[in-house]
Amino acid sequence: MQAFSDGVFAIAITLLVLDLAVPARDQVGAGGLGSALAHQWPSYFAYLVSFLVIGIIWVNHHTMFSMVNLVDRSVLFANLGLLLVVSALPFPTRLLAEYLTAGADAHIAAAVYSTTMLAMGVAYSVLWIAVTRDVGLLHKHVDPVAARAALRRFGLGNIAYLATIGLSFVNAIATLAVHGALALYYCFDQLATPHAGRPDDDTG
Amino acid sequence: MQAFSDGVFAIAITLLVLDLAVPARDQVGAGGLGSALAHQWPSYFAYLVSFLVIGIIWVNHHTMFSMVNLVDRSVLFANLGLLLVVSALPFPTRLLAEYLTAGADAHIAAAVYSTTMLAMGVAYSVLWIAVTRDVGLLHKHVDPVAARAALRRFGLGNIAYLATIGLSFVNAIATLAVHGALALYYCFDQLATPHAGRPDDDTG
Amino acid sequence: MQAFSDGVFAIAITLLVLDLAVPARDQVGAGGLGSALAHQWPSYFAYLVSFLVIGIIWVNHHTMFSMVNLVDRSVLFANLGLLLVVSALPFPTRLLAEYLTAGADAHIAAAVYSTTMLAMGVAYSVLWIAVTRDVGLLHKHVDPVAARAALRRFGLGNIAYLATIGLSFVNAIATLAVHGALALYYCFDQLATPHAGRPDDDTG
Amino acid sequence: MQAFSDGVFAIAITLLVLDLAVPARDQVGAGGLGSALAHQWPSYFAYLVSFLVIGIIWVNHHTMFSMVNLVDRSVLFANLGLLLVVSALPFPTRLLAEYLTAGADAHIAAAVYSTTMLAMGVAYSVLWIAVTRDVGLLHKHVDPVAARAALRRFGLGNIAYLATIGLSFVNAIATLAVHGALALYYCFDQLATPHAGRPDDDTG
Repeated sequence: MQAFSDGVFAIAITLLVLDLAVPARDQVGAGGLGSALAHQWPSYFAYLVSFLVIGIIWVNHHTMFSMVNLVDRSVLFANLGLLLVVSALPFPTRLLAEYLTAGADAHIAAAVYSTTMLAMGVAYSVLWIAVTRDVGLLHKHVDPVAARAALRRFGLGNIAYLATIGLSFVNAIATLAVHGALALYYCFDQLATPHAGRPDDDTG
Repeated sequence: MQAFSDGVFAIAITLLVLDLAVPARDQVGAGGLGSALAHQWPSYFAYLVSFLVIGIIWVNHHTMFSMVNLVDRSVLFANLGLLLVVSALPFPTRLLAEYLTAGADAHIAAAVYSTTMLAMGVAYSVLWIAVTRDVGLLHKHVDPVAARAALRRFGLGNIAYLATIGLSFVNAIATLAVHGALALYYCFDQLATPHAGRPDDDTG
Repeated sequence: MQAFSDGVFAIAITLLVLDLAVPARDQVGAGGLGSALAHQWPSYFAYLVSFLVIGIIWVNHHTMFSMVNLVDRSVLFANLGLLLVVSALPFPTRLLAEYLTAGADAHIAAAVYSTTMLAMGVAYSVLWIAVTRDVGLLHKHVDPVAARAALRRFGLGNIAYLATIGLSFVNAIATLAVHGALALYYCFDQLATPHAGRPDDDTG
Repeated sequence: MQAFSDGVFAIAITLLVLDLAVPARDQVGAGGLGSALAHQWPSYFAYLVSFLVIGIIWVNHHTMFSMVNLVDRSVLFANLGLLLVVSALPFPTRLLAEYLTAGADAHIAAAVYSTTMLAMGVAYSVLWIAVTRDVGLLHKHVDPVAARAALRRFGLGNIAYLATIGLSFVNAIATLAVHGALALYYCFDQLATPHAGRPDDDTG
């Protein structure tokens, strides 16, 4: 399952580059290519945030499964739910890049993006519940109390994602910035040992 | 072989997102982006069903190969046949998304989609026959009688796929819904232990 | 190296589906979608042949590396050369699909396709030389005499690919058919045991 | 982590083929398809250089991680930084292919391409620092002095990349050629044993 999930994460994160359009030669105005590229800043911004989000989710996904000993049907389908949201992410990214500076439609695009992020947070929490609901699925050294605390922390993240849907109708650019900040936050507040399930693994 | 197959499944499932088109700015009408996006519901519907289908096929593929001990040339090429259909799936998905509400052409698109599903079912059955035809290819603990019963069950699924080709000419939207329902059915009626070939693996 | 190579094979084979274009709604003529799809037969034909070619190359690549014990720098770069041709294959495939029925330009497209196939055959032979040039790189049970015989067989295939470049200027459709036939030929005349390097592996 | 990284490298290298456009039938002029294809030489040139660059980076990445025993959070995020640049590479490649012969805009495109290469070199050096900063992360047999010497060598490469940004404003085609030459240079001046961490691994 890890190989398939890694594949989906790797492909979704790499497909984001298709959202970066090369300006057509006949559409480059008087300012030349430099100005045409600068004009595309919403694409780079959305690309960067979505790359960060998928990267963080992948790191956390890895961390989660380093605790897992057995995988049952519920975990398998909860995982498929998360992969559905991850693999769909290039679409709202392209949408937001296209409409970030489009007036009223920017709010719609930002709301779609934020809703996708909420769906990702919820899918991650559901997977986390599926994994920790049965102590028999986890490795022996995993502490169920710490696992439940991590779940509560993720729950708080989901409330933040919900708030960004509201923020979308106020300011689309700020919404995208907040998603970038939330991704950076998850870099630093994350589950414990990232690798191999060995207690002395994290030397950082 | 598993790594290559997992790769094809993961890429085909992730390439589906390229079928979701961002409405061009100058084609968004008076209703704004929201209405333009809502108008694209056939794309989301087709995306969801195809994602589910590839996901289920992948889970079943994994289950099948957890029973397999040795792989010979016949299995290799039967597997390539299944991958051919899986990797082609983004095409009928895009086709159906584009034509689902296009009057008479919707029937053609739905029939192409249903035929692809039938081809997938047949390719899966052929692979299943290739794998179970020789007891020496399977792990010791696999029961040949149960394996043959599973094959019969898949055969029934193929008759259902055949029926959806007929249904395509009656109602294209209903046809897509039936494919979604069939995929969900395969979630719950599936081969036994999903992982690692250990008898105590499924704790669900 | 196998994981990276498998990835490139899997992606190249799956990207071929992007060469299958959905007819635009306003370009479907009086004959309806069915006739528009039928009109695209060169795309399906080229898709099928290229899928088969990459699939066969992958199987043979796997077979080759099941004999290899150590990988040095020369093998690594010879492998990169093969992957370059494999990953470029969607381009001549799309080209031939677009121009197969385009009169004089069909010959050019077929010649480009055939040249790519020749490049693939040569790259495969070079990799095979890199792998077998030093007995120390191979597993103990591999017979160097049989390995050299296989190389001669591949050399013959390259002459066939060279001939298809000439054939391209006679008949483009026949050229594509010959490439399909050559791929099928390689299905049945191939190196010995496909898996795991165990002598009793192939039960077919 | 290796599986995810291999996936991103493999996908980025294979997505480059999407930058090779098939000339539209109605845009092929009096010279026919042959002349239209020849006219696209900047696409093939940029494709080749970018393929080589990603291929070399992948080989070096593999070499680096064959020395690594443990992976901590810093390494994980430094690696994500490198993957960000690698997965973005198809964009400047397409840009340079489109504008290589476009007069003044060619300089901009070449500068963007060179800046991406510099970012890749810096990201690689940062990852190298993250990996070698703590002797406890490396396998026992790795020599820290040699590791630091390799870092200095990479640092020199970054100065070369910086110089290509200046060269971009003189001659775009020469800039692309220099990037090809730098990639070839990295083929031959590279860290020691490429595989498996066994001292007798490199028989080349």
